[in-house]
Amino acid sequence: MIKIAVTGASGRMGQIIIEAINQNDSVALGVALDKSDDLSVVLNQFDVLIDFTCPTATLGYLSICAKAGKKMVIGTTGFNDDELSQLTRLVQNVSIVFAPNMSVGVNLTLKLLEMAAKVVGEDSDIEIVETHHRFKVDAPSGTALKMGEVIADTLGRDLKMCAIYGREGIEQVRDKNTIGFSTIRGGDVVGEHTVSFFMQGERVEITHKASSRMTFALGALRAAIWLDKAPFDKGCVYSMKDVLEIT
Amino acid sequence: MIKIAVTGASGRMGQIIIEAINQNDSVALGVALDKSDDLSVVLNQFDVLIDFTCPTATLGYLSICAKAGKKMVIGTTGFNDDELSQLTRLVQNVSIVFAPNMSVGVNLTLKLLEMAAKVVGEDSDIEIVETHHRFKVDAPSGTALKMGEVIADTLGRDLKMCAIYGREGIEQVRDKNTIGFSTIRGGDVVGEHTVSFFMQGERVEITHKASSRMTFALGALRAAIWLDKAPFDKGCVYSMKDVLEIT
Amino acid sequence: MIKIAVTGASGRMGQIIIEAINQNDSVALGVALDKSDDLSVVLNQFDVLIDFTCPTATLGYLSICAKAGKKMVIGTTGFNDDELSQLTRLVQNVSIVFAPNMSVGVNLTLKLLEMAAKVVGEDSDIEIVETHHRFKVDAPSGTALKMGEVIADTLGRDLKMCAIYGREGIEQVRDKNTIGFSTIRGGDVVGEHTVSFFMQGERVEITHKASSRMTFALGALRAAIWLDKAPFDKGCVYSMKDVLEIT
Amino acid sequence: MIKIAVTGASGRMGQIIIEAINQNDSVALGVALDKSDDLSVVLNQFDVLIDFTCPTATLGYLSICAKAGKKMVIGTTGFNDDELSQLTRLVQNVSIVFAPNMSVGVNLTLKLLEMAAKVVGEDSDIEIVETHHRFKVDAPSGTALKMGEVIADTLGRDLKMCAIYGREGIEQVRDKNTIGFSTIRGGDVVGEHTVSFFMQGERVEITHKASSRMTFALGALRAAIWLDKAPFDKGCVYSMKDVLEIT
Repeated sequence: MIKIAVTGASGRMGQIIIEAINQNDSVALGVALDKSDDLSVVLNQFDVLIDFTCPTATLGYLSICAKAGKKMVIGTTGFNDDELSQLTRLVQNVSIVFAPNMSVGVNLTLKLLEMAAKVVGEDSDIEIVETHHRFKVDAPSGTALKMGEVIADTLGRDLKMCAIYGREGIEQVRDKNTIGFSTIRGGDVVGEHTVSFFMQGERVEITHKASSRMTFALGALRAAIWLDKAPFDKGCVYSMKDVLEIT
Repeated sequence: MIKIAVTGASGRMGQIIIEAINQNDSVALGVALDKSDDLSVVLNQFDVLIDFTCPTATLGYLSICAKAGKKMVIGTTGFNDDELSQLTRLVQNVSIVFAPNMSVGVNLTLKLLEMAAKVVGEDSDIEIVETHHRFKVDAPSGTALKMGEVIADTLGRDLKMCAIYGREGIEQVRDKNTIGFSTIRGGDVVGEHTVSFFMQGERVEITHKASSRMTFALGALRAAIWLDKAPFDKGCVYSMKDVLEIT
Repeated sequence: MIKIAVTGASGRMGQIIIEAINQNDSVALGVALDKSDDLSVVLNQFDVLIDFTCPTATLGYLSICAKAGKKMVIGTTGFNDDELSQLTRLVQNVSIVFAPNMSVGVNLTLKLLEMAAKVVGEDSDIEIVETHHRFKVDAPSGTALKMGEVIADTLGRDLKMCAIYGREGIEQVRDKNTIGFSTIRGGDVVGEHTVSFFMQGERVEITHKASSRMTFALGALRAAIWLDKAPFDKGCVYSMKDVLEIT
Repeated sequence: MIKIAVTGASGRMGQIIIEAINQNDSVALGVALDKSDDLSVVLNQFDVLIDFTCPTATLGYLSICAKAGKKMVIGTTGFNDDELSQLTRLVQNVSIVFAPNMSVGVNLTLKLLEMAAKVVGEDSDIEIVETHHRFKVDAPSGTALKMGEVIADTLGRDLKMCAIYGREGIEQVRDKNTIGFSTIRGGDVVGEHTVSFFMQGERVEITHKASSRMTFALGALRAAIWLDKAPFDKGCVYSMKDVLEIT
């Protein structure tokens, strides 16, 4: 049984991670930490630490884990360049999984899109539609743009040059080399993305729908279990692609 | 058995109407006419005439039918104001069904949207998404705009003021009073429209998908059958709403 | 401002109702009651009581409200015949809204289905598809069956005779008079229902998706606000159709 | 420019293949053959022959092509074991593409399903939903079963043991190791398949929608262009996976 430490344990994400641990027979909660707790005195109580806090806190935890040879799964976002290079330096004595989006489904979807683009991308009209709750202010979503980038990279296109964000009033036959984006906002939708490859006589659609934050917790847990057995102990920064073995 | 006359019989739409007639046990093809044929000599061969030609031809046929007291179903589009007033004058001695879109499904959908808007329109985020083939140059589609108008009218809004055609780069929480439009273009999609009413904790979606022109032929046939039994013989210009009894 | 009393206030549904009240400017929480609290001593603290408890408790509350002339919105389910007739007797001095499913979206959907069935039901192949979480044991869902009943009633069919629950191994062209049901189970899907009316060349689809219990709380609140202004004060048992004015 | 021969040229599939050739700049119609035409006298008029006829006719054409070293793309179905071994023997002097379903989209979809099953199959509830026109008598569709097989093979399961074709009246929590099938029949739907991988908090869906037979013609053309340049000239029986380079 792999023992997991959870930081930010009383926060929203921490609570969900603990719930996910309790539902999973191959892991156990080793220790739950909050801001005021001292990681260095509980190092013997866990195998892998899962951390979704903030860059400063994460670097602090990583510094302690690195010295002790304890592996970490880091889902924290918002690192600046300085913090990122600090992170890279600290990692030398230990291995981590570091991923801005731990959702297994989103990472699988990106891989499926790469394959679809490779096989039919040149022959199809590609359209990305995303739906999120009414309070989301950025458009298109970061995940939709990431999907577009993966497709554009696969096809050797520059997303900046081929993205189309609206068609109202543009009386023009569709240019095959473009990638269309549609943004829908409404209600309390957690997040839905559909990429369609339209061909003559058929279409292929790849859809991801998120319904709760639990998806990130489950991804982090899968990463922790994988990392515990990962062959290289030191200095590796793994991504979710490594965890899911879809590199 | 109702006998139907079809004009433009060798054209694409005429051919489909004849196919629809052959599939339907309660109607029979009375006579099939092309440009060069003289309607006035075959008046005794049919009960209702179905016409999807052009304004000039339609007015010619209507003039002959009006004198003979023969009913007409007119799916022709593109009338200017002069032609429309001519049509209205001619109709005085006969009744017609006159509809720019004969699709039963589209007309039903408009009615469903009116009802949905009435019940939840004020409390929901309304989004209209339409998908058409890569060669369609107008955006949004006429049907999507018509859907928007029906909803806006029901809610006492002005579509021009509340329509949103794109969100890229606009960092803003969704305004409840807007109606969003998304336009997807790809492949050979005949036409799909989905209107979503997003509420907290739930959504209602109304979708219409067209897969062939047969839908217009079947609507015209339904109109012809209805018109043959319509109570008022003279001077009525009926719409598909009358035919479907959803006024 | 309408003052609302909430029973079962510390339960899951009670909590969500209180959250919904706090988000709504035209109502206020008058009093929150749990099992051990005495309703009769707080009667002057509210205008309408919202109750999602159990039949016995509901009848107890209704008995007190009826004497005091206080209106109630009842979302409790599971009444047996005795309890139902008791409820009807008690209602004589007061008016209530009584509905097994308070979701505005579901009730709207039922009305849309009735209208769609009336217009195209005889000419279309009707299929009902429902998706729920992996733990739901009844199949098809109660809501899917209710949808089927509304459609069958509208078309003068007996659902028991025309429902089809599976097609594997049955090599047969589809019988137009049947209504097909498909049951999908997976993950933590709260509840999705799509009814499709397939015609030649087109289809119309009506979909309801629930994402949280909040939808029931919001429906109850809408019912309370409507009931507060309802013209008939005594002896009426209103449904959500009355509240939504779609009778 | 690759010159293509088309057999069964006046049949439905032959006509569509010719239409596809006319739309494509890198191929030209070399010769169009019907039953009564003699292939052996036009061997110098084409590079690759596309054949969607019947087993007997196909073996006849293959026998002539094999002697002449002419490549073939064969979309014919319904071979018995004898005919198959004859085909294999004939192929020794030439290379062919032989595929029961030439649709690029379906073959891509099968590959995407394999990848999705590998990454999340063990942790998800898998459901396959297919929709076809009202006249289709087999259920589930052959393509749906093929999808189920690909997934079951990837997961080391036996589809016969884990397939679930209906849930009505079975009051049971979903067994994670099953694969659910739903069959929808209605209207004139050409063919739609959606496979959903439901996980906690998210789902991934892979959808294929066919709208016309053109998809098979385009796949055959893609196969012909690929085969013309294929490195191994003799004795290879290639599949669409080879053509699409997704083996």
